[in-house]
Amino acid sequence: MTDKNPSTSQMAREIAEQPEALARTLDELLPRRGEIARLAGSTKRLLFIARGSSDNASVVARYLGEVHAGLAGALAAPSVANLYSAEVDLSDVLAIAVSQSGSTQEIVDATDWAKRMGARTLAVTNIEESPLAESADLALITRAGRELAVPATKTFTTQVAALTVAIDALAREKGRLDADFARVPAEAERMINSSPEVLDEMVAALSRTDEVLTSGRGITFGITLEAALKLEETCLRPVRGLSYADLKHGPMAIVDAELATLLVAAGEGPTLPGLIGLAEQIRSTGSPVLGLGGDDAFRAACDIALPGPELPEELTSICLPIPAQLLVERLARALGLDPDAPRGLKKVTQTD
Amino acid sequence: MTDKNPSTSQMAREIAEQPEALARTLDELLPRRGEIARLAGSTKRLLFIARGSSDNASVVARYLGEVHAGLAGALAAPSVANLYSAEVDLSDVLAIAVSQSGSTQEIVDATDWAKRMGARTLAVTNIEESPLAESADLALITRAGRELAVPATKTFTTQVAALTVAIDALAREKGRLDADFARVPAEAERMINSSPEVLDEMVAALSRTDEVLTSGRGITFGITLEAALKLEETCLRPVRGLSYADLKHGPMAIVDAELATLLVAAGEGPTLPGLIGLAEQIRSTGSPVLGLGGDDAFRAACDIALPGPELPEELTSICLPIPAQLLVERLARALGLDPDAPRGLKKVTQTD
Repeated sequence: MTDKNPSTSQMAREIAEQPEALARTLDELLPRRGEIARLAGSTKRLLFIARGSSDNASVVARYLGEVHAGLAGALAAPSVANLYSAEVDLSDVLAIAVSQSGSTQEIVDATDWAKRMGARTLAVTNIEESPLAESADLALITRAGRELAVPATKTFTTQVAALTVAIDALAREKGRLDADFARVPAEAERMINSSPEVLDEMVAALSRTDEVLTSGRGITFGITLEAALKLEETCLRPVRGLSYADLKHGPMAIVDAELATLLVAAGEGPTLPGLIGLAEQIRSTGSPVLGLGGDDAFRAACDIALPGPELPEELTSICLPIPAQLLVERLARALGLDPDAPRGLKKVTQTD
Repeated sequence: MTDKNPSTSQMAREIAEQPEALARTLDELLPRRGEIARLAGSTKRLLFIARGSSDNASVVARYLGEVHAGLAGALAAPSVANLYSAEVDLSDVLAIAVSQSGSTQEIVDATDWAKRMGARTLAVTNIEESPLAESADLALITRAGRELAVPATKTFTTQVAALTVAIDALAREKGRLDADFARVPAEAERMINSSPEVLDEMVAALSRTDEVLTSGRGITFGITLEAALKLEETCLRPVRGLSYADLKHGPMAIVDAELATLLVAAGEGPTLPGLIGLAEQIRSTGSPVLGLGGDDAFRAACDIALPGPELPEELTSICLPIPAQLLVERLARALGLDPDAPRGLKKVTQTD
C-alpha cells in the first residue's frame, strides 16, 4: 500500500510504519534497562495504571511481569484513587502508568495518587512533553512518531515493546532475550506482509455475522483483548474478549454458528495446547474459527488462520497485534466505515 | 411465588431463600472477624483466586479491600500458577480463594501455589468438606445450603457477604458497619419483593433486543459483571459488562437503539453522579436504559428502574444482585428457556 492509492487509509499507513517505529523504540529503550532496574530497586510488585488499548498492553505486561520477572502484578482501579481517594500502602510498588498521549487526566491523577501512597512511578508514553512523562520518576518514551488515525496501531505495539523492555529490566536472568529483541523489527515487517488473500477470507467470514468473540490465554491474552477492542471501536461490532478459561466457565453456552470466533495465540508456550483444543471445540459448534499466531497444529485446528511472529512467547505480543490491525482496517473498509475516524471516538479520551 | 405454582423454577425458590441464607452466614461469620484479622497479620495486600461468579464476587471485595481496608488487591491469573508455574514472591499476601463447590481443581491448585509462594490462605466456599476448605489456612463457610439450579444465586450473595465480612475484619475502623450488617437479611427480603410489574417491563425491554450491555463503577462494579454473566449464561444473550470509564473510553461507539443497557448502582457514593450522567448520555442515543439501585435522581435518569437496598455502599453488593436474579429468571422463562439448567453449563466447572 502506498500514498498513491486513494483507498489507502491513514490507519494502513501507520500500520506499515511499525517496523521502523519498533526499531527506534527498542534502540532507545533497551540500553535503559539498568536505569529501570535501579528505579525499581527492591519493590516487590507492579501496579499498572491505564485505560483502553493501554490497559490491554498492561495486561500483557502483568502476565510477563509474573512469569518472566517473578513480580506480582495488578491493574489499578482508577476510581479507587480518583473517586474514593482511598489510602492504600503502595510503598513496595513500582507503578507503571501507560498512556499514548500522556495527558489523560484520569491516568495522570491516579499516578500522582500512587506516588503519594509511596509507589515509585514509571511512565510509558509517546509524548515526551506530556504531564505524565513530567510527573513520573522515570519516563520511557515510545518513538512511534505522531499518530493521526484514531485507532492506536504503532503507538500500541511500541507501548508493548516498551513494557516488555521494562519487565526484561526486572527479570532475574539478564540478556537471554537480547538476540530476539534484535529480530523484532524484521518480524514486524513479516507480519505487515501477511497474506492479503487470507485476510480477505477472514474479512468475508466476519462480514457474515455481527457477533464476534475473541479468546486467548496467558502472556498474549492482552492482544486478544486489544483485537476485541479494535474490532468493536473501528468496525462497530459488539465483541467480547474472554480468556480461554473464562469462556469455558460459562459463556461457551452462547457460541454457535451465528457467531464468529477469533483466537489469538503465541507460537509456543504452555497455553497453546489448550487453545488448540478450544479451536476444535468451538469449530464443533459450527462457529467459524479464525486464528492468529499459534503453531502448525493450532492453525490446522482453525478454519482460517494467519501465522504470527517467530519470536519467543515473551516477545510475541509486540508483533502479534499487526495481523489483527490489518484485519480490522480491511473489515472497516469492507463495511463502508472510515477506519481513521470511528464513530464517537476521539484520539485523546478524557474519562472522569 | 410458592412451590404450588408449577411455573416456579428451582432458581426462583433459591432466590427466595436468600434472606435466611444471609442471616445464617452473617451470624456465623461476623464473630470470626478476630480470627481473620489474626490470619492476615501484617500482610499488606490481597490476592483473589476465583473464576466465574466467584470472580465477580472477588471484584467487589477487591474494591472494598482498597477503599474500606486500605489493602491493595489483585485478581490472580490462574495460568501464571498452573500453566507457567511462575515463581512469584507472595510473602506479604493474604490469598483469598473463592469457590462455591470448593472443588474446582484450577482454584485448588492456584491456592496451593499461592501457599508455596509464601501467601497466607483464606477460603470462601459453600462446602465444608471440600478440598479448598481443607487446604486453606482458614475457611469461611457460606451457609447457603445446597444449591440445585445451575445459576448461582444464594451461593453468590452469601459469598459476597462472607467476603464483605473478611474485608471488614481487616478495616482499621472496627464496628462501624455492625448495625447495617444486622439489617442485611431484611433488605434482602425487600429486594425479593421488588415490583413484579417493573420486572415485567424490564423483561419486555430485554426481549425486544438480543444485544445487552451492562455498566457500573466502583465497589458495586462486580455486581454489574455478575448481572452480565447471569444474563448471558441463563438467557443466552451475548452481554458485555463494562465499567463506566471503559465504556466511555471507546465501546460507547456501539451504543444505539438496537442495544439495551442495564446500569447497576449503589444508592450512595462517589461513583453515583457519573452513573447518572451516563444514564442520560445513553438514553440520548435511543438505547433503552434499565437501572438497578441508585438514588431517586439515578432512577429518574433511567427509562425503567428498580430501587436497590437501603444499605451503605460497602454492604450494597450483598443485596443488589437479587433484583438482577429476579430479572434473569423471568427473562429466561419469557424466552422459553429453562432457568435451572442453561444450555452447555454444569454446576461445577472444571477448567484446565
